[in-house]
Amino acid sequence: MSLPDGIFISFEGGEGSGKSTQIRLLEQWFRHRGRDVIVTREPGGSPGAEEIRALLLTGDPGRWDAVTEALLMFASRRDHVERTIRPALAQGQVVLCDRFADSSVAYQGYGHGLGPDFIRQLWKLAIGDFKPDLTLMMDLPIETGLARAGARFANVSAAEDRFEKMELAFHRRLQQGFREITAMEPKRCRVIDADGDVETVSSRINTVMEEFLAGKPA
Amino acid sequence: MSLPDGIFISFEGGEGSGKSTQIRLLEQWFRHRGRDVIVTREPGGSPGAEEIRALLLTGDPGRWDAVTEALLMFASRRDHVERTIRPALAQGQVVLCDRFADSSVAYQGYGHGLGPDFIRQLWKLAIGDFKPDLTLMMDLPIETGLARAGARFANVSAAEDRFEKMELAFHRRLQQGFREITAMEPKRCRVIDADGDVETVSSRINTVMEEFLAGKPA
Repeated sequence: MSLPDGIFISFEGGEGSGKSTQIRLLEQWFRHRGRDVIVTREPGGSPGAEEIRALLLTGDPGRWDAVTEALLMFASRRDHVERTIRPALAQGQVVLCDRFADSSVAYQGYGHGLGPDFIRQLWKLAIGDFKPDLTLMMDLPIETGLARAGARFANVSAAEDRFEKMELAFHRRLQQGFREITAMEPKRCRVIDADGDVETVSSRINTVMEEFLAGKPA
Repeated sequence: MSLPDGIFISFEGGEGSGKSTQIRLLEQWFRHRGRDVIVTREPGGSPGAEEIRALLLTGDPGRWDAVTEALLMFASRRDHVERTIRPALAQGQVVLCDRFADSSVAYQGYGHGLGPDFIRQLWKLAIGDFKPDLTLMMDLPIETGLARAGARFANVSAAEDRFEKMELAFHRRLQQGFREITAMEPKRCRVIDADGDVETVSSRINTVMEEFLAGKPA
């Protein structure tokens, strides 16, 4: 029996967009169709990449500058791709990944101002042309996402605090970044309206998945 | 009183070339001339870079592939440059560094086969045009260096073991790499004949330093 084609699907989007819940639902959706699925996430996803993740996510928020952070992100991504993602795809598995390289383009490229071209050069050096077969861009109004994520942004007009305004400006740059990435690669990147209850958003994702699978050779 | 110009000097060369001994002697040489000196090393040299060093130098030798290793090296280098080297130079200090980016060109570029252009692109992304003012290339016949470093290469012609031959081939690629780097930047990179006793090699380095300092504005 020949193996099915491996499929690499990444989920992108800001805080509170419901990525992890929807990944678990999509995992079940594929399992019901008889597919082997692995769920992974970035930064991390392989033993080495998880060690780099610990460097990235612990300690003082200012311990790495944006360039060092981008280099560490792509070091962990290289390890994740070589040790986890490529071997799973070679075995015909479906790989569902919470964030991938588009997050570096959005966060370090747009959010922290390094620019998308800088990050795309690093992408090319680190993993060449490797990218997801499909990327689901979980789209949500910024205020809704931040409120869901538990931040104090429910009433943004009252936020006179400088830090809160900076945070909001940062999230607007992220959103702009994800939208420009989608505009550049509309075939790979599909926008999912993430404003709605879990079942509603899940059925939107399933519709996109049916379309995607219909477009692939059996 | 105005500060003197900071000076950034790196030491490069293979195993057993006497870099650390000569760095300590050159440190004293500068101190006798009234200069503030810091001695540092790569990978490492700043708190964050030392944490990345621990990832690079511990565990199984095959835990990172060559590309991941190069990305981690440049992540640690970026941190080292921004947090240690640039601030020291801004205070007029002399910075003596045991290995710098040329080692990545030689080891990952030539030794592990990624190619020097690949590493130079990464160099540009990580630290731009930043490089040492002077690089001392400690040159030694490979067999002498390996014997000094305690390896079992004293009688290379008898080494029929495949691993030893691979090791020797690797060190020949390193040597070729350091020579090509020197040929590309003969003004920055000065070859030091490292074959001789400590005092002889030290006086060769001091001669180069006198020439270098004579060429700088007071």
